[in-house]
Amino acid sequence: MTWEDLAKELSVATETKIVLLVVDGLGGLPVDGRTELEAAETPRLDGLALKGALGLTDPVLMGVTPGSGPAHLALFGYDPLRYRLGRGILEALGSDVEVRQGDLVARGNFATLRDGLITDRRAGRIPTAEGERLCGTLNRAFAGRTDPEIALFPGKEHRFVVRFRADGLDEALTDADPQKDLKAPVPAAPMSPRAAKSAEVVNAFLAEVVSVLADEPAANAALLRGFSLQPSIPRMPELYKLDPAALAGYPMYKGLARLVGMKTYPVGPRTSDLFDVLEAHWPEHDFFYIHHKAADAAGEDGNFAAKVRAIEEIDGFLPRIEALKPDVLVVTSDHSTPALLKGHSWHPNPFLLVSPTALPDAAAAFTERDCARGGLGRFPSLGAMPLMLGHAGKLKKFGA
Amino acid sequence: MTWEDLAKELSVATETKIVLLVVDGLGGLPVDGRTELEAAETPRLDGLALKGALGLTDPVLMGVTPGSGPAHLALFGYDPLRYRLGRGILEALGSDVEVRQGDLVARGNFATLRDGLITDRRAGRIPTAEGERLCGTLNRAFAGRTDPEIALFPGKEHRFVVRFRADGLDEALTDADPQKDLKAPVPAAPMSPRAAKSAEVVNAFLAEVVSVLADEPAANAALLRGFSLQPSIPRMPELYKLDPAALAGYPMYKGLARLVGMKTYPVGPRTSDLFDVLEAHWPEHDFFYIHHKAADAAGEDGNFAAKVRAIEEIDGFLPRIEALKPDVLVVTSDHSTPALLKGHSWHPNPFLLVSPTALPDAAAAFTERDCARGGLGRFPSLGAMPLMLGHAGKLKKFGA
Repeated sequence: MTWEDLAKELSVATETKIVLLVVDGLGGLPVDGRTELEAAETPRLDGLALKGALGLTDPVLMGVTPGSGPAHLALFGYDPLRYRLGRGILEALGSDVEVRQGDLVARGNFATLRDGLITDRRAGRIPTAEGERLCGTLNRAFAGRTDPEIALFPGKEHRFVVRFRADGLDEALTDADPQKDLKAPVPAAPMSPRAAKSAEVVNAFLAEVVSVLADEPAANAALLRGFSLQPSIPRMPELYKLDPAALAGYPMYKGLARLVGMKTYPVGPRTSDLFDVLEAHWPEHDFFYIHHKAADAAGEDGNFAAKVRAIEEIDGFLPRIEALKPDVLVVTSDHSTPALLKGHSWHPNPFLLVSPTALPDAAAAFTERDCARGGLGRFPSLGAMPLMLGHAGKLKKFGA
Repeated sequence: MTWEDLAKELSVATETKIVLLVVDGLGGLPVDGRTELEAAETPRLDGLALKGALGLTDPVLMGVTPGSGPAHLALFGYDPLRYRLGRGILEALGSDVEVRQGDLVARGNFATLRDGLITDRRAGRIPTAEGERLCGTLNRAFAGRTDPEIALFPGKEHRFVVRFRADGLDEALTDADPQKDLKAPVPAAPMSPRAAKSAEVVNAFLAEVVSVLADEPAANAALLRGFSLQPSIPRMPELYKLDPAALAGYPMYKGLARLVGMKTYPVGPRTSDLFDVLEAHWPEHDFFYIHHKAADAAGEDGNFAAKVRAIEEIDGFLPRIEALKPDVLVVTSDHSTPALLKGHSWHPNPFLLVSPTALPDAAAAFTERDCARGGLGRFPSLGAMPLMLGHAGKLKKFGA
C-alpha cells in the first residue's frame, strides 16, 4: 500500500489551514564558517524555531541532487522516483503553456537546413523577437487544423515549445534532433507500437515547417526533443481532500502546482505580492503553497551576500503569515542551492513546522545545523505532506 | 525505480577519488561507561570528526544483525534484502575459490559411511592435512573431466568447498546432508525442473566420492549443503562508472569485492600493508575500499582492550590517507561487534564523511554517541554509496 492509497483512505476535509512556504534553494554551505542561513539576520524565523519542531529533508535520496520538478513533487507528497516529468512537459509548464491530458509536448529549436544538412542547430541564435515572429507564422499556417491541433509557443532566442493535441498520442519517441551540426535531419522514431501515430504526426509537422519557412534565411527548419505527455498524476483534491492554492510568480512552479490540482493566481514580481494574494484569498482555500525564488537565484549565481539578503527579506514577511493564524505553518525548501556550489545540490533542506501540536525543540535559531539536531530528524521530503496533514487534523486514525 | 536504475542513469566518470575505510566491527557497547571507540585514543579520527559530517547507519534493518556479506553489500550500494548470497558462495569466496558466472558451488564435509548409514557427519574431525590429502586424491580422480569440470578446495579439518563448472547448472537443490548421524545419505533433490541437471551432476559426484574413497578408514563419503550459483549482481563499474579497487587481506572480503567488480590486490598481513598498496595504486583507481579486520576479531573474542588497541592502531594510519587528498573520505563499518556481546550485533555503525562539500557538525570526537547527534542522521547503509558519489560530484542532477 502506497502513501497515496493511505492518503485517499485517511484524509478528511476540515476547516483547518496549512501554509507551506518554500524558500527555494534555502540550504547552503559555510563560507567563512557560516552558511547563508546562519549568516542571515532572521529574527522571525528564529522565533518560530523556538516554538516549532525542526528537521532535515532529503528530496530524492541522500547524495542525489534534484531538479525543481522532482523536488517539488516530493514536497507535495508524490514519490519523485515514480512520477517522472519529461523535459518537454517541464519546458511547457515553464513557458506557461496550457497542457491537457493526452497532449504531446516537446522542446523545439529553430535550425538552419542547407543542402540536406543541419548547418546550425540554433539558427544563429536568432533574436527572441524573430522566434516570436516565426512561431506566429507557423501558428497561422496550422490555424484551424484538428487531429492534430498544433500550437507553437516561443521561448528565448531560437527556442520554442510545440503542443500536439489529438487522440491516441504517445510520448515513446526518439528525439528528432541530430544533436550535432552538419548532420542530416533525424525523424522521430517510435520506441513502441503505441507511438506510431505520434511519429507520423511529428514527422509531418517537421516537413511542413520546412515548407512554410522555405524562404527564411537562417531559421528554415525545426528540431524537437523531450517528447512528453501530460503525466498521469493524481490530484491533491482527490488524494488529500484539500482545496489548495499556489502563490508563485514563476511559470514552472505555477505549472507544477496546476499539474497536481492546485488553483493558481496571478502574482506580481515583488515578494510582497505573494502575501497580498495570500491575504486576498485566505478564506477560499485550506492549503497554500507559497514559492519564493530569490534565494535560489542568488545561490545559482554564487552570490552569498545576495542569498543572505533574500533570506532576510522573506523573514520580514513571516508576520503577515502568522497574523492569519494558520493551523500548520511549514517553512522549508525544495532543494539546497549553496552559493559555494553555484547550483542545486544534494544537501538536505532545513525544515520548520509550527503548530499547536508540534513538540518544540526550543532551538534558538532556524539553521541547517539546528535542523540537524531537530526532533523531526532527517526524513524524505515525501514525509512532509503526511506530517502537515496530520498536524492539521486532516488524517483519520489508521486501523482500530 | 530502484537506486540501481537511478545510479546507471545519473552516474558520471570523473577524476575525483573516494576512499571508503571499513573498520570491521567498529561499533561497540560500554564497559565501565565507555564503548571501545570512546575508550580509544583517536586524535586523528577526532580531528576528522571536527571537520566532517557524522551519522549512524543500519546495515539491513534496525534490530537485525547482519553477516559480513549483506553488511558489505549494503555499503557498496546493493540492497541486502534483494541480493542474497548463499552460504556456498560465501564459503567459496572466503576460501579464495575462483567462481565464474554459471559455476555451482557448495560447502562440503567429509563423513563416515558404515553399512549404509552416516555414522559421523564430520568423519571424526580429521586433521586439516588429512582433508587436504583427500581433496588432492579426489581432484586427481576428476582431473580432465568436463561437463562438469569438478574441483575441491580444502578448508579446516573435515570441511571443503566443491565447484561444479558446466552449462545449465542451477542452485535450486536441497542439501545432500541427513543433518544428523545414523541416517542414510540423502541425495540432492531439485526444487525446480531447472535444477534437474544439477541434481544428476551432484548425485553422480557423491557416488563417485564413495567409490574413490572406499578404502579410507574414516572419511569415505561426502555431504554437501548450501548449493549456490555465482549470484547475478550488477558490477560497480557499470552501475557507478567507477574503476574501484579493494585492499583487503582476508579472502572473503576480497571475494565479495571481486563479485561486485572491484580489482583486488595482494595485501600482506600487517595493517601498514594496506596503506602501502593504497599509495602504490593511488593513480590507477577512483574508488578505494580498505578493509581493516582487527577490531572485529577482537570484538568476536570479547577482548575489549584488544579492540581498543585495534582502533588506536588504525587511527595512526589516517594521515597516510589524508596525505593523498581524497575528495571524499568515509570511515565507517560493515556492522558492529561489541566486545560485550562477543559477536556481530544489530547496533548501527558510526559513520564519518569528510569532503569539502560536507557541512561540518563540529563534533569533538568520533564516537557512537557523537554520530547519533550528527547531521547525516540515521540512515540505511545502502545510503552510503549515493552519498559518497554525490559528494564526489559523480552524480548528475535528477530531473529538471
